[in-house]
Formats: sequence, C-alpha cells, structure tokens
Amino acid sequence: SPFSLLSRKSDTARDQGEMMITARSHVSVTLGRSFSHPPSAPSSLEWDDVPTALPSSPHLSGTGRLARCAHKNHGKGRSDYRFIENVWPQPRIFLQNDTDVFPFDPNLVKVVTAFSCDIMTSSLAGFSKRMSLVLSHSGPTKAQPLELHVIVDDDKCPSTPQMGMVESYSLSVNKTHIVLQSMQVWGIVRGLESLSQLAFPSPIGLTMRVSHIEDAPRFPHRGLLLDTSRHFFSVRTIKAVIDLLAQNKFNVFHWHLTDNESFPFKPKAYPEMVKGAFDERHVYSQEEIKSIIAFARLRGIRVIPEIDTPGHTRSWGVGIPAITARCFDKLGKEDNDRAILDPTNPLTYDVVSALFKEIFTLFPDRFAHLGGDETSFWITQCWENNKNVTDYMKLWGMNTTSQLQQHYIDRLLNHLTARDMPRKQFIVWQELLDMGMKMDQAIGHVWTGNTKKEQMGNMAKIVKGGHFAILSSCWYLDHISWNIDVKEYYDCDPQDLENVSEMERGRVLGGEAAMWGEMVDESNALPRIFPRASAVAEKLWSEEKYTKSVNGDKVWPRLYEWSCRMAERGFPVQPGNGPGYCPFEYQPALPDLNY
Amino acid sequence: SPFSLLSRKSDTARDQGEMMITARSHVSVTLGRSFSHPPSAPSSLEWDDVPTALPSSPHLSGTGRLARCAHKNHGKGRSDYRFIENVWPQPRIFLQNDTDVFPFDPNLVKVVTAFSCDIMTSSLAGFSKRMSLVLSHSGPTKAQPLELHVIVDDDKCPSTPQMGMVESYSLSVNKTHIVLQSMQVWGIVRGLESLSQLAFPSPIGLTMRVSHIEDAPRFPHRGLLLDTSRHFFSVRTIKAVIDLLAQNKFNVFHWHLTDNESFPFKPKAYPEMVKGAFDERHVYSQEEIKSIIAFARLRGIRVIPEIDTPGHTRSWGVGIPAITARCFDKLGKEDNDRAILDPTNPLTYDVVSALFKEIFTLFPDRFAHLGGDETSFWITQCWENNKNVTDYMKLWGMNTTSQLQQHYIDRLLNHLTARDMPRKQFIVWQELLDMGMKMDQAIGHVWTGNTKKEQMGNMAKIVKGGHFAILSSCWYLDHISWNIDVKEYYDCDPQDLENVSEMERGRVLGGEAAMWGEMVDESNALPRIFPRASAVAEKLWSEEKYTKSVNGDKVWPRLYEWSCRMAERGFPVQPGNGPGYCPFEYQPALPDLNY
Repeated sequence: SPFSLLSRKSDTARDQGEMMITARSHVSVTLGRSFSHPPSAPSSLEWDDVPTALPSSPHLSGTGRLARCAHKNHGKGRSDYRFIENVWPQPRIFLQNDTDVFPFDPNLVKVVTAFSCDIMTSSLAGFSKRMSLVLSHSGPTKAQPLELHVIVDDDKCPSTPQMGMVESYSLSVNKTHIVLQSMQVWGIVRGLESLSQLAFPSPIGLTMRVSHIEDAPRFPHRGLLLDTSRHFFSVRTIKAVIDLLAQNKFNVFHWHLTDNESFPFKPKAYPEMVKGAFDERHVYSQEEIKSIIAFARLRGIRVIPEIDTPGHTRSWGVGIPAITARCFDKLGKEDNDRAILDPTNPLTYDVVSALFKEIFTLFPDRFAHLGGDETSFWITQCWENNKNVTDYMKLWGMNTTSQLQQHYIDRLLNHLTARDMPRKQFIVWQELLDMGMKMDQAIGHVWTGNTKKEQMGNMAKIVKGGHFAILSSCWYLDHISWNIDVKEYYDCDPQDLENVSEMERGRVLGGEAAMWGEMVDESNALPRIFPRASAVAEKLWSEEKYTKSVNGDKVWPRLYEWSCRMAERGFPVQPGNGPGYCPFEYQPALPDLNY
Repeated sequence: SPFSLLSRKSDTARDQGEMMITARSHVSVTLGRSFSHPPSAPSSLEWDDVPTALPSSPHLSGTGRLARCAHKNHGKGRSDYRFIENVWPQPRIFLQNDTDVFPFDPNLVKVVTAFSCDIMTSSLAGFSKRMSLVLSHSGPTKAQPLELHVIVDDDKCPSTPQMGMVESYSLSVNKTHIVLQSMQVWGIVRGLESLSQLAFPSPIGLTMRVSHIEDAPRFPHRGLLLDTSRHFFSVRTIKAVIDLLAQNKFNVFHWHLTDNESFPFKPKAYPEMVKGAFDERHVYSQEEIKSIIAFARLRGIRVIPEIDTPGHTRSWGVGIPAITARCFDKLGKEDNDRAILDPTNPLTYDVVSALFKEIFTLFPDRFAHLGGDETSFWITQCWENNKNVTDYMKLWGMNTTSQLQQHYIDRLLNHLTARDMPRKQFIVWQELLDMGMKMDQAIGHVWTGNTKKEQMGNMAKIVKGGHFAILSSCWYLDHISWNIDVKEYYDCDPQDLENVSEMERGRVLGGEAAMWGEMVDESNALPRIFPRASAVAEKLWSEEKYTKSVNGDKVWPRLYEWSCRMAERGFPVQPGNGPGYCPFEYQPALPDLNY
C-alpha cells in the first residue's frame, strides 16, 4: 500500500516543534513540560465555587461591566449578577488571589523578551488591540507601568504549526510584572489568550487580579470542520472563524473544501475543474488560501485540507465529466446523479493525483484529510449497476466493490511520489477503515453513531484496529437543538471507551466540532458555531476531571461570561444557553432604513 | 364582565380604513375590492410551471444576477440555475408576458398621483432606495422614462394601521407606465413591495417584464411575535425586523414586551418597575417605543403590545415585590419563584391597571394582548399553597383558582374606564378561554398542541366557543430543526378545522410566527426569523390553493430567490432550505483582524 510511505517520516528531524505521534508518546507531548504543581492540585476556581470577588450589585456604577454576567434562572428567583473572571477553556491549574487586584492599562505594558518571532509579535499585537477595545469599554484606569516577560525555552520561530506542537504555558500575573513562559511560541499564543481573559472591568476601571496559571491541553488535535462546498464563505469570515478558534484554544481548522455541491478551487493542472464552483466569484484563489494559512499560523491554528473522494464528487464532473461514473437504477435506466469517481478511467487518477499534489504543497500541514465517507450511497448505482465498472473489476480480478475502492486508493496514491506528498499523514472518515481498507497509518475520523454507545463503539473499533482516532459524532454543530445543547457536548468524551487498553485509549488524538454547510452561510454560521464549539474546545483542552459529566448549570455562568467576551470583541456569538444579556452586545450590519 | 365594554366599539365610526371584525365580514374585508378576474383564474406562474424566461446559462455575462438562483439538488444532478422572477408571497393573480421585457431605471421613474400621504411618500422613498441598490448591483441600464401612477380610491391618510385595513391592490407594469391602484394606502404599500420584486438583472441591466398583478391577503391578521424579555433587542434591530415584515407582507408586529426574565419598560406611574429590567441600558423608553410604532405605521405594520399577566411576572416583583405572590412547596417551605401576581393585594390592581392604561395609550393599535398563558405552572405553589391567597378565596366565596383568575381579570379591568382602554380588543393566550374564563370578545391565541391534530383541535375549540382565533402552534421559530422546516410550516393551515361551520371557520383571523427569546439575541435572531417566517407570511397571505399541502421542492426555488433578494438588500437572512449561493450575500459586521 502506498501508505507505507508514511512510515518514512519517522526518520526525519523534529523541526518546528512537531512530534511524531505514537500511541505512547502523545500524552506526554501534549503536556509538554513538567509542572511544579501536580495536575491534581486543587484549583482555587472550581466550578462549584466561583468566588464573588467584587461587589455583585446589578447596578455597579461606571461603565465597566465586562465580566458581569446574567445567569439563567430555572424558575428560582430572578437573574443573579456576579463576576466570574474565568478563563476559557478551564486551565489545568488556576490560582487567584481573591483580594489582590490592580488597575491594568494595556498601553502601559512593556514587553521584555529575548525571543524573536513574528508569531509572538502578532499575538502581542492582537492582545494589545483587543485589550485596548476592552479598555475603551471599561473607562479610564489609573494603572502603573507593567512588564510582560515572555520566555520561550526553544528559540526557534516555527514555519508552521504541526501535530505535537507544544502549547502548554505558565502565566504569573503580579502588580509589577507578568511572566509568560512556554517551551515553544505556541504556548505563548495560548497564554496570551488566557491573559486577555484575566482583565475585567471594575469600579477602578480595567482590572487584573494577582493570578497564576499552569496550563496544557488534554488532546493534541482540537479542531473545527467548516464545509465550504454547500455554501461559500468569504475569506474575511473564514479568518474570523479562525481567530475565534484561537481564542478558544482550538488548534485545527479542518477545511472541507470540496463536495457534491461545489468545487470552489481552480487547480493549476486542470483549471477547468473550477467549472464545478457555484460561479467564478465563489472560488478560493491560491493566494487567498495562502493568506488564510498564514493568518492561521500566526494564531497557532493548523489548516488541514479535506479533498473528499471517491464519493461526494458530483461537482468534479462539471469540469471533467469523464471522471465521474455513470449511474443506473436496477432496471438499467440512467440516473444523472454522478457523485462518485470513475475508477476505470486513467484520467481520474491523473486528475485526482495532480490535485492532491497541488493541495499537499499548498497546505503545509503534515495532515491531509482524504474523505472517503458515504461511498455506499453511490456504489450500488454507479459502480455495481455500471457495466463498464463491473467489466473493469473482472479484468482486475476483483469480486467486491470494497476491493475496487481499495484499488482506487492504491492506484491513486501510486501516482504520487514521496516528494508529491512530503511526510503527509492521512486522515480518513471512519468508513474506509470500517470497510477494511488497508491504510496502516491512516487516522480514523469518527462521525457516525446514533447513540453515545454507538459513537464510542466506533471510536473503540478504530483504536483497536491500531489507528489513531478523531471524534466528531457528538459534535455536529449543524444538528441544532431548539434547546440547550452544550450539556450533551460535555457528556461526550473521546476517551470514554470500553474494553480498550491504555495504549489503545492513548490513540485518541482528540476531536472536531463539525459545521456542515447545508443550512449555514455568512448570515448565520458564526453564531451557530460559537459559543457551541466553545464547549467542545473546553472538552478537548481541559482536564477530564473538569469536564466529565459536568452539569450544564455549572458550566453556564462561565460560558455566559465567555460568550459575552467574544461578543464584546465584535463577533456575532449567540446566547450561551438561555435568557440574559451582555454588557456589550453584537450589533449586526444592517442597511439604512431611515425612510 | 368588563369585556362587555368592548361591544361599544361597534358603534364607532369606521375611520382610517379599519373594519369591525365579525365572523361574517372579515373574508370580504380582506379581499377589499372586487377583481375583474375571478380569484380562481389560473395564474401564469403556478409553482409547477416556472418559466425559464431568460437564458439559463450559469455563466450569464454581465454582473446582473439578482434573480439567478442555485437550486438545491437532492442527488439529481448539479445546481441548476434559472430566473424565477417571482413575487413573495405568491399573488392571487399574476400574469406575465414571457417575452416582453424592458430595461428599468428607478431614477427615471416619475410618480404621478393625486393622493397625498406620508405613508405613500415613505414607501416610495423606500422603493427608490432599494431599487437604486439593486441597480448598482445590476450595472448600467439604458432605460426610458417611466410613469408610476398611484391611484388610491379612499383619499384619507390613515393615522394608524388597524385590523381590517385594506391591503389589496392591482399592479400593471408596461413599458411606458406602471399603474398601482388600491382602495387604501395600505394596498399601495403592499403593491410597491411586489413591484420591487419585479425588477431583475439581465444582460440588458436591471429589467422589468410586462406584468399584471391582482392581489389581496387571505387572512387579515398576519404577524410575528418577538420576545424582548428573555433577550433585549435594540431599536435598530426591531426596526429591521419590522422592515422585513413589511417586505414579506406581514401586517402585525406582536411585541411580547415583558416576561419573567426582564421588564424592559419604565411606567410613568410606577417607575420603580424598571428595576425588573436587565439593567438601565436594556429598557425601551417611551420615545423609542413611539419611534418604533411610527416606523411600523409607515410600513403598514400594526404594533400589538403584550403585557402578560398574571403569570410570567417574576421581573415585576423586582420593582414592587408585594405584587407577586409568595410560593410554597407542599411541605410549606417557601420557594423563591415568585412568577405570578398576588391577586389578594389591592396594589396589584393599581399597578397593573396603571400600566395597562399607559400601554393602551402608547400603542394606538385597537388590539392589545393580555397574555394569560401557563398560569398553571405557578398556581399550585403560589396560590393554592399560599394561605393568604386561600383565605382571600374563602372571603370572596371562591372554590377554585379558576374562579380566582376570573376574579383577577374582572377586578383588574374594573379599574379601567372606557377612556382608559379606548375601543380596545383583547387577545389572550388560549388557556384563559380553555379554562372557561368569561371574555366574550376576547380573541384566542392558540400556541399548544404537540401534533397538528391537537393544534387544529385547539383552534376549533376557540372558534366553536364564539371567539376569533389566531394560530401560532405550528410556527414557533425557536423550535429550530437542523433540517428544512419550511415544509412543515406549509403543512399547517389555520383553517384546516374539522367539524366546524363556515361561520366558525370564518372566525380564524390568521396567525403569527413566534420568535421566543430564550436562545436568540441580536447575533442570530434575524437569520433565524427569515426566511423561515417568509413561509408563514406566504401561508397567511396567499390563496389556500397555492399553499395547501405544498411540496417543499416546489416552494424551494421561489424561497431561495426571495432569501437572496432580502440578503442583497443587506439583511442577514439565512439559507432557505439547503445548499446554494446568492449573487449578493450578506456580510456580517466583523472586527479588524489585521494582525
């Protein structure tokens, strides 16, 4: 199998802070550094015990009310206001001094560091810009100058974030100085997000509390899938999504680039493929994709492209009809639904491998998603009922369409040299592995299961088969509920597996919230993603003890505060899980209706 | 019962185009004028037979593509583009000449009319502004000057829209002149909305087709409920909602002003009630409410306030604790959930009647909504378990809490003089009538029923009881589905009643889509309301033959075009019901992320 090529990557140097993932190593990799406090040390800010640090009057004087929070009430008294001042996602260790607060002015912060890297510079600029906005809402503050010491153990400035990058950090906030330390710049990026949440408004203006955080992610793969085929998203909106991913300490933007509905990309080798786009405006140029990747890199977000084959390819046939298979019902009548590639046509392999080569180069991430889902939707009509295909199977001595799909994969990847897919690791939707495809190094992406038990059984199947696994089944953001769905997102844990060994459990890389595009476009995607995906972010970042079987009512005030923070920063973030308000709400763009 | 006061209104003059509603008259009232074509005349634009009037190439040259439409495909071939050029909601009679088109420039339109009224002037200004925007998207056009003749039979300029206003109109579009005629200005407002949809882009620029429309609404009450208690909506967003209501030919904005969660209003008589608001920013001032009503008036939208009592009043007790009843569990332990008024306290009647008096004056609509829903949630704990309340019942010789609720209503309305509630007609949630409250003239608003059968049974019960009825049960916009819910909105018909007489069926005034506020705020309400409410608008406006058991696939291309039109006009309108794109998509307000 061409996938044996992948094992070569273990010979290469570990540059850019990336790590080879193996079942044994990834847990320690995600931790990244040893803590002076053991991870089990109690935090001063458990969810059950949120301190009411400042006056909780609903009519606090002054304009600063960022951290004020309107609680949902389930028929038990009216809204209750209090400061939470929490960090999202819940840090591993979070110590705060309940009384020691000081005014904070981002304009008086002096950065002291021996480290030089555009990623750090951009993160600091973003921090400064965001804090200036919050300061403008909080009113004037009489702060003292403050030094922000940034310490990075590894002095490399990475060219790109990769699986295994070290995101752990420690953060100490005192009246005269802040110390932010990490092994790699990625921890600095994450730590600045935490720092930005430590500032809160109070009667003395923008305020910080003496604090100490030791933090590290639970899982190394924490992503969001966005589908740009069913609806097209502008570059500006994709960047806003990515910025919000970084604010929530996600680290993967899974770009589901193509599907049946449109092909919003113009390959250099086969430019006619762009005919499969909705129209010429709904296409991502190479430059736009590069700008999105560069934007994501500065925020520690990996961009993993998905080119889904052999199914979900109806839009491919618009540009080159011959590469999609003709389909027939059981009576032999042709059906026009050509949504799976034709594995008998040599041109299919030329086109797909040329596209893969281009995508693998354009996207620097080591991971690429090859799709492979739902082929059974089309295999009967377009392969089994297609005489040309069955003749081809006979010619190659194949008895099943599973063998044909394996043949498609092998033949396709045989077109690619090691140079064409430099150290790439492939993710595939679970069916390919479930169907017994031989892809030794492939990572299984689990999306099916109607019940939690089925979903977890599917995860177990993947890791017991020797594969790494990523979970999405329980985090389909398109499956909206009219009620609160945050709780059920917490109830799902990627490692809640039965009858698996610790090694097998260790093969769980993390998960992804999935925003499929059927019912969302720029009008509604951002509020539909956030803050619902924030719950997934916390599930994947924070320690299991904080997120296991969590009661929604305990998450609520923290999530509400976090939603309001994102709204205050100018993003259309919908209500967390019920009635309430924010001190600074999102204002949609609306036309002039002054007549 | 104080409701006998209401019968007095039938003695008053029918000014301002309003009509007294009676079971017999309202059908003819909604029609408003006789047509030269009988309503059963076939339209040239049935949904089954949408003409592809202009070249259907997906790569039509030029920039004008407003009416181009990406169809959803259910696995049957890729997106299919064509012009629809339809009018939403479907007009009663819509004749178009398939070949006779001409370039259209709103700047070359000269309005010719003998009528003078600010409502017409504003509607024309809105039409002109909207058309100029569409023209800017369509590119230059070589149009000839065109006369728009506006003919209004009744030369009164109404002070306010009311139940029974005449909204029917006829519209003739020719190359040299357009004739828009109505009995009242409200038909002109509706007709201009239709006219604005007749302009479409083509290779010759903005284009119109020779057309004739005869149109009238099916129901006189076509509304949207917006809940401003669970989340607060800014005045600008409420106005945007109202503008979209007008675009969809709704005629009622049902303002669910207060509820348990907040009381966003400051009564002059009891200003301390505003303590029940989320905070001082989340309050509608008298001036803001007046400006919303004035804005709605210019668009032919009635604003009906709802002050929900005696339940749903938790926020009332924040300002004046004594007017909400204390609650106790069955063991006598006090529960803090004071969400129903205390009917034993004279102050309760003073406060509520003063508020009603103020609201009835502030809102000029003849209808006011008195709520009355879900009282049973609180009656047990706060009335039956409250000794003070049970003592009061004994004192007044009441055996049931139903009697107490009747007593509350009677005593409350006895506080009000005819002058306090000038010719008001009350809407109440169905439970009050279901519970047997005596409110002879009250209109029942049906919101319950888990199945269509139950919902329709509830409607039948109201009309068989001699009441007018409004349906919302099947149009709860907060009950979102991850899939397409437009079809089920069409499957629900307010007059689909079994075992009722024609007179009883005639008591159905219409319906309202309901946007309850638990999970929506300014970040997501507009796209959640539209275009889903557009389906309700069509159900309530268009003839039954067009909307009865309609197949969603037939509605789809029309709804998609209409959604894209609203998006092009600058409103955050979400996808109609599946994959696709718009020529001009909504762009959310986003922060500068340039770092």
